[in-house]
Amino acid sequence: MSLIKTLNSQDEFVGFYLIKELEIKQTNSTPAKDYLDIVLCDATGQLPAKYWDASTTDKETFFPMGLVRVQGLVQTYREKLQIKIIKIRKATDDDGVFLTDFIRSAPIRPVDLIYTIKQAMDSIQDKEMHTIVSFCVKKVEERLMHYPAAKTHHHAYFAGLAYHMVRMLELGDFICKQRPFLNPDLLTAGIILHDIAKPEEMTAQLGIVSEYSVHGKLLGHISMASNWITEAAILSNIDLNSDRVLALQHMVLSHHNSGEWGSPVQPQIPEAIALHHIDTIDAKLQMVEDALDTTPEAENWTQSIRGLENKAIYRMKL
Amino acid sequence: MSLIKTLNSQDEFVGFYLIKELEIKQTNSTPAKDYLDIVLCDATGQLPAKYWDASTTDKETFFPMGLVRVQGLVQTYREKLQIKIIKIRKATDDDGVFLTDFIRSAPIRPVDLIYTIKQAMDSIQDKEMHTIVSFCVKKVEERLMHYPAAKTHHHAYFAGLAYHMVRMLELGDFICKQRPFLNPDLLTAGIILHDIAKPEEMTAQLGIVSEYSVHGKLLGHISMASNWITEAAILSNIDLNSDRVLALQHMVLSHHNSGEWGSPVQPQIPEAIALHHIDTIDAKLQMVEDALDTTPEAENWTQSIRGLENKAIYRMKL
Amino acid sequence: MSLIKTLNSQDEFVGFYLIKELEIKQTNSTPAKDYLDIVLCDATGQLPAKYWDASTTDKETFFPMGLVRVQGLVQTYREKLQIKIIKIRKATDDDGVFLTDFIRSAPIRPVDLIYTIKQAMDSIQDKEMHTIVSFCVKKVEERLMHYPAAKTHHHAYFAGLAYHMVRMLELGDFICKQRPFLNPDLLTAGIILHDIAKPEEMTAQLGIVSEYSVHGKLLGHISMASNWITEAAILSNIDLNSDRVLALQHMVLSHHNSGEWGSPVQPQIPEAIALHHIDTIDAKLQMVEDALDTTPEAENWTQSIRGLENKAIYRMKL
Amino acid sequence: MSLIKTLNSQDEFVGFYLIKELEIKQTNSTPAKDYLDIVLCDATGQLPAKYWDASTTDKETFFPMGLVRVQGLVQTYREKLQIKIIKIRKATDDDGVFLTDFIRSAPIRPVDLIYTIKQAMDSIQDKEMHTIVSFCVKKVEERLMHYPAAKTHHHAYFAGLAYHMVRMLELGDFICKQRPFLNPDLLTAGIILHDIAKPEEMTAQLGIVSEYSVHGKLLGHISMASNWITEAAILSNIDLNSDRVLALQHMVLSHHNSGEWGSPVQPQIPEAIALHHIDTIDAKLQMVEDALDTTPEAENWTQSIRGLENKAIYRMKL
Amino acid sequence: MSLIKTLNSQDEFVGFYLIKELEIKQTNSTPAKDYLDIVLCDATGQLPAKYWDASTTDKETFFPMGLVRVQGLVQTYREKLQIKIIKIRKATDDDGVFLTDFIRSAPIRPVDLIYTIKQAMDSIQDKEMHTIVSFCVKKVEERLMHYPAAKTHHHAYFAGLAYHMVRMLELGDFICKQRPFLNPDLLTAGIILHDIAKPEEMTAQLGIVSEYSVHGKLLGHISMASNWITEAAILSNIDLNSDRVLALQHMVLSHHNSGEWGSPVQPQIPEAIALHHIDTIDAKLQMVEDALDTTPEAENWTQSIRGLENKAIYRMKL
Amino acid sequence: MSLIKTLNSQDEFVGFYLIKELEIKQTNSTPAKDYLDIVLCDATGQLPAKYWDASTTDKETFFPMGLVRVQGLVQTYREKLQIKIIKIRKATDDDGVFLTDFIRSAPIRPVDLIYTIKQAMDSIQDKEMHTIVSFCVKKVEERLMHYPAAKTHHHAYFAGLAYHMVRMLELGDFICKQRPFLNPDLLTAGIILHDIAKPEEMTAQLGIVSEYSVHGKLLGHISMASNWITEAAILSNIDLNSDRVLALQHMVLSHHNSGEWGSPVQPQIPEAIALHHIDTIDAKLQMVEDALDTTPEAENWTQSIRGLENKAIYRMKL
Repeated sequence: MSLIKTLNSQDEFVGFYLIKELEIKQTNSTPAKDYLDIVLCDATGQLPAKYWDASTTDKETFFPMGLVRVQGLVQTYREKLQIKIIKIRKATDDDGVFLTDFIRSAPIRPVDLIYTIKQAMDSIQDKEMHTIVSFCVKKVEERLMHYPAAKTHHHAYFAGLAYHMVRMLELGDFICKQRPFLNPDLLTAGIILHDIAKPEEMTAQLGIVSEYSVHGKLLGHISMASNWITEAAILSNIDLNSDRVLALQHMVLSHHNSGEWGSPVQPQIPEAIALHHIDTIDAKLQMVEDALDTTPEAENWTQSIRGLENKAIYRMKL
Repeated sequence: MSLIKTLNSQDEFVGFYLIKELEIKQTNSTPAKDYLDIVLCDATGQLPAKYWDASTTDKETFFPMGLVRVQGLVQTYREKLQIKIIKIRKATDDDGVFLTDFIRSAPIRPVDLIYTIKQAMDSIQDKEMHTIVSFCVKKVEERLMHYPAAKTHHHAYFAGLAYHMVRMLELGDFICKQRPFLNPDLLTAGIILHDIAKPEEMTAQLGIVSEYSVHGKLLGHISMASNWITEAAILSNIDLNSDRVLALQHMVLSHHNSGEWGSPVQPQIPEAIALHHIDTIDAKLQMVEDALDTTPEAENWTQSIRGLENKAIYRMKL
Repeated sequence: MSLIKTLNSQDEFVGFYLIKELEIKQTNSTPAKDYLDIVLCDATGQLPAKYWDASTTDKETFFPMGLVRVQGLVQTYREKLQIKIIKIRKATDDDGVFLTDFIRSAPIRPVDLIYTIKQAMDSIQDKEMHTIVSFCVKKVEERLMHYPAAKTHHHAYFAGLAYHMVRMLELGDFICKQRPFLNPDLLTAGIILHDIAKPEEMTAQLGIVSEYSVHGKLLGHISMASNWITEAAILSNIDLNSDRVLALQHMVLSHHNSGEWGSPVQPQIPEAIALHHIDTIDAKLQMVEDALDTTPEAENWTQSIRGLENKAIYRMKL
Repeated sequence: MSLIKTLNSQDEFVGFYLIKELEIKQTNSTPAKDYLDIVLCDATGQLPAKYWDASTTDKETFFPMGLVRVQGLVQTYREKLQIKIIKIRKATDDDGVFLTDFIRSAPIRPVDLIYTIKQAMDSIQDKEMHTIVSFCVKKVEERLMHYPAAKTHHHAYFAGLAYHMVRMLELGDFICKQRPFLNPDLLTAGIILHDIAKPEEMTAQLGIVSEYSVHGKLLGHISMASNWITEAAILSNIDLNSDRVLALQHMVLSHHNSGEWGSPVQPQIPEAIALHHIDTIDAKLQMVEDALDTTPEAENWTQSIRGLENKAIYRMKL
Repeated sequence: MSLIKTLNSQDEFVGFYLIKELEIKQTNSTPAKDYLDIVLCDATGQLPAKYWDASTTDKETFFPMGLVRVQGLVQTYREKLQIKIIKIRKATDDDGVFLTDFIRSAPIRPVDLIYTIKQAMDSIQDKEMHTIVSFCVKKVEERLMHYPAAKTHHHAYFAGLAYHMVRMLELGDFICKQRPFLNPDLLTAGIILHDIAKPEEMTAQLGIVSEYSVHGKLLGHISMASNWITEAAILSNIDLNSDRVLALQHMVLSHHNSGEWGSPVQPQIPEAIALHHIDTIDAKLQMVEDALDTTPEAENWTQSIRGLENKAIYRMKL
Repeated sequence: MSLIKTLNSQDEFVGFYLIKELEIKQTNSTPAKDYLDIVLCDATGQLPAKYWDASTTDKETFFPMGLVRVQGLVQTYREKLQIKIIKIRKATDDDGVFLTDFIRSAPIRPVDLIYTIKQAMDSIQDKEMHTIVSFCVKKVEERLMHYPAAKTHHHAYFAGLAYHMVRMLELGDFICKQRPFLNPDLLTAGIILHDIAKPEEMTAQLGIVSEYSVHGKLLGHISMASNWITEAAILSNIDLNSDRVLALQHMVLSHHNSGEWGSPVQPQIPEAIALHHIDTIDAKLQMVEDALDTTPEAENWTQSIRGLENKAIYRMKL
């Protein structure tokens, strides 16, 4: 097996990979010929690949998110590696390969992430808050097992959303100890709820977001979560005007901090201030970690990162 | 009766007025003496007034929003008119004066405004939209009779909110005729719902906003209205995922156009674009009208207006 | 006849079309061969087309804005339709086809638009304003029959400028009735004059802007129109310091509302506020309408629109 | 004679001064008494002054811009010097004092400034440019003898506008020698014309701007100057479409560099780029010089200066 | 002893307080009389106070930062409490009161804060980094015992700077454990150095900043600290081009994240990203804590806080 | 010899050129073939060139910054000129051609620029300032002979940095005469030091910047120069707290004027204000000159220039 990360120019190789993207294109020659323009990936990285002279059968056989066995040659095109596919076939049950082995994912097993989130949820003493949080978690519990936290920004991989929550819960716990004026119930609830509607905002498979849903574009995950809290309260007979409902909705609505970033109100209670900054520090450090992980060891600079003022990160050797 | 608008420097006068603001202050003299620092108003305008040497009884007798009979003298202080109160007493039932005669209000009777709004509401053919709009209107119907549309920005007077709606409904009607691709039901519903939660965002009496409510600050009228739509749908057995619910929530959430102005999403359906601009043009022209109305005839320039790029408006004589 | 809008992949067809754009390009093969890279359009839409192996005669025969008869085949290239031209010849008089049948244009006949604009102009009671408006309209009257209102932004088609004026005149009329403090003469004059210099700011043919003129870039249509008003006043013996000249120049100079958008002064008279917002609402709604019209029925989202906060518009089915 | 600059706390003094500002105010005492709240100045600076217990005659005798003889006492109020006026009377012809001796003014005599400007004007070889510049200079020649360049920003004193022009002409001359691709005629003309309409934008007396004119607010000096160039061309039979007219109008319209600062177009010819930066450097350095001149020797920091990023300037001793 | 926090309107009281601010003012009466306008504070809060009819001796006796014994009366002026001073004298040694008992200070003893900082410093394994950090700490060690972290923004009290460092060190420690790719030496060094030059940027006494120094204004604490690192390296024979010097200077220079906030470069190494966000979260939460601490228990809203988007914080009761 | 500037479409030619850029690419044909995608330049301009069917030897023979003899044919590709290389070989010593003849460079000989800079340096009377400036100049003296002032922005050619300094020194000299309150020593020192660290911020060869250095990205030339001044002072026994050191560091740190442009502090002494604006005017006018020089005579508009508000410059014929 040849892992993507280990391939070098001029290597001939055989291996199993996931087709992450696939487009049928035409050459510029006359007459034009069809070829498959593919992105192959495994858990260690991804590379562009070309399958020249694709037959009609080929075009009907290969699709994104399919596992394939490839015999190929690594070439250099415009200073970047690219695979020329010599042979390609779909993987079969007999090959004993599994989709989940070919994608990037959180470093902790989804089942453990969910367990931790549920424990945190059950640590909430306030009964009404616990009820509302449970209601919302139940809506997405299954998807929490695999949804990423974003399309590209940060934690963009299998179970990235749950992983982001868990890290934030750890930080929240620590900060509540540093600063006793913070209400741990409210902060815990806010951390669990703040991105809870993301699985309905985006369509994702195997940790890869393909697009935003219509609801996602027209309402946004922030307002959706606010609506869910309303729904939870009504269906659980909790007074819509109670301070708990108010506090939870405020936490969710304000967590992007400013209108420019999509929050209709700014944080105005201590826990909302804490939530915003815990979210930020975890997202930013994860962007750094993800960028370092996906930059070849030999390179000192990552690519520039939109969420970090468009700066590249330098790998200092100290 | 001496209307505020007609008072000139050195006039001695008697009249009934509303105490719009009242503060007990101390003079700088030693020992300091208490006096009442008052703003008197009637429907034609307002003036500052001082009642020197206020007794303990005085301080317990006079309050904001009370009607009083005043005998006074008009003086000039720092180039502006100011009333020196000579005698003051509370108005009694025998005086035959009514609060509503002393405040600025919409040029159309509240009862007629409500009638027009309800007619527009009943013109909505779509049953689900009609149900949701009715539910929300019912929540605030009583307050629509008198609430202003804003604290100071525009339509800041008795029934200003309903008046703003009615004018927008007229414009919306006209524009739907100009542009048949717009859905009149949706635009009508959007106009009625866009500011529907303002009476819970602000605390107002007689068309004068005293402060924002806690809910108003922590959620904002935009998210509150979105929650009401959720509530309406649940209680009326309308599918929360229906396109109608989606469209109405999008109209409300996007009507401030940008995050900077408090909308968590931007308008992305034709009627939402229309709603935002109808709201804008009506508010801006009302600011102009209000500024011209409250600027003395003799002056060519109004004060500068925050909502109009901080510009003053010039009264051109053509 | 095969209308552009009705062509599907793999169709073979014959039809007359307008060459909207044409570039001679070389293939990447060695030796490189010349081919014609063309955009064909008719009034229903446009498609890219390739004419491979163009001869020297071909390169001297075909030009942008020429009508041609094409025999072609519809292919799919990068998920978009593209025409492979099999045969192409110039249209002749005998073909009985006319340029104006092949371009997008306002939904009202130019002659009717001009008639409406002139009627509005003649409704101006103030003699000096009428004189100035007439002078400026005369400068561009012929071009008003076909000029677009912008290069791409909105109303970018045959007679789009006149159509924009007519719609604004309707709205202006309605708003003057809603708000009697507005001077209808001044608003009407402002609507007619605000974009009157656009035909000298841009070079356009058949409703398609090819480029901005040197005067357009160095002065801009706003200052040009201001200069025309000065010119009109001098040549008609109107006092340059009269309030009418001042008001008309202010209307034109301020109609983009802020310096950021090219207005050297901000609106400071009621009619200038109205003019800016009438211009805005008509332009924005036209952007929506144009985007919906040029998006295939089968698609729910238009492309993103620069003038609408870079948002795409969703075609909601209610 | 006691110059303002030399007065210290507790000084008793007599001298002639100009009343720069005067307001009749009332004390807070009961009953309130009238007093005169005055700003006294001479060419070396200015100080606030109070004349307590002003009689009716006093109130009708003293006005802004009048010369007075004052006997006074210097006090400290809120850590700043303030004059308590003991005696005050209007200056008479016999006193032999002249208004112009009491105001800040350019360090070069107005007559010499005008002479230099006219020489520069006459150095313009291009006949049409010379004609247009002459026409515009003639419009304001008299006012150039005394107008300031701005209300407060920079060169806000007697003949400040002409002084600003002269300094810019010197710099322009030097830079044309450094960079021969610049057209000296065009740069000279642009320097003379760029602020030429300021005397109609602002109302000023003795180098002190009291307010902006209606034309100034509704059109701005930039568009006014552009209109003057149109007027000059028409009345001198110069083709309105000539490149000279275009170039001069572009210089004037673009000299504030960006829409944010009031220019409807950005500089797009070399001389316009030069003009903007020569204007900037002269204005900024003059702000520094003015701030240093009006800051007491004993203080190291000037007040903060709006035009210099709101920074104060430090007087370094090297 | 009457603590500031416990005083209510109409209370007569005696107690020791610190004069935080003192200005000699004049009454508006004629003739004007001098009085002392004072701010009295103790560790529980502060109140304005007036001492009417101040004698010449009084004016020479009382100064800011002096301890006094006051007999007074609490009044309400413009809805706020204010002290009328009846008797006042300087505190003497016999009174047994100490300055440090009267000021707000960090909740941990300075000596313990310094001990913790030094322990963190000594945990730095890298010898060169340890040397540079030691050098810089030595420069300000004495002042670290009492300096605040800012003038008003956050941690504006006795030993606030050291307290801020200690809290950040705790957080840094925790985050290094969460994310092993971070270099703990570098992050610890960065936390200690990032604000190390603040004691030379500001002049402070008893935790209260009176002004910025000339060096502070002209260089800023960020560039000063960068210069100190250069100095430390030269004097300790560390190669100026070493990666350690580079990394430490980058940490300091980039910690405000953007040019807008005074950082000449943006964070581009993982530890610099972490430093910025640890600094931010600690400062923001401290602003919340400080605001809550200084807001009377009876009030639900703090004053609006500049560093928190100008929002007030709501004290939610859950 | 055929100069780049003189080549026209269809010309066959032979000449020596510098390879400015070279990339090995593959054609889209199957199988793909390698070709060399080259940018050829001489001192008069540059053109893209293709060398089809490159052999393995070719790929190992030709590199950027190499001189070559080319026989070629000028073609038009996408409306732009492009060279088809027929024969190519490396230049040899016998060819008698020199690298420096093939690059853009300052219009004054480097040796003369350095001489002028040193003369200016030696005109500095203040001994400490002279010492510090000398120290810093010595660090980069050799590189000043050839370094450009920027990567692309302005003065991006051989010795551009020294040329920029010389022009600024001339302007500084003139302005010190106009405004005697400026200290010529300090302004001269500031001009020489402001960009002195650029040769360590960027890696350049023959006046062409290939990339920013790690120090350049993590510290920036502004902070590096500030550190050099510290270094100079320590090694020359100048008091680090002296006003000279402070003034020079302030000049350097503030010369980009605002945080947005990389200055951690804003100019707060007169000479720093002057420095910033002299730097700006020289850079902007050089951008104009460079753009005009590299735009073919036949074209009226240059390309749009990032540093000039993204505007193109028009070549007016007057």
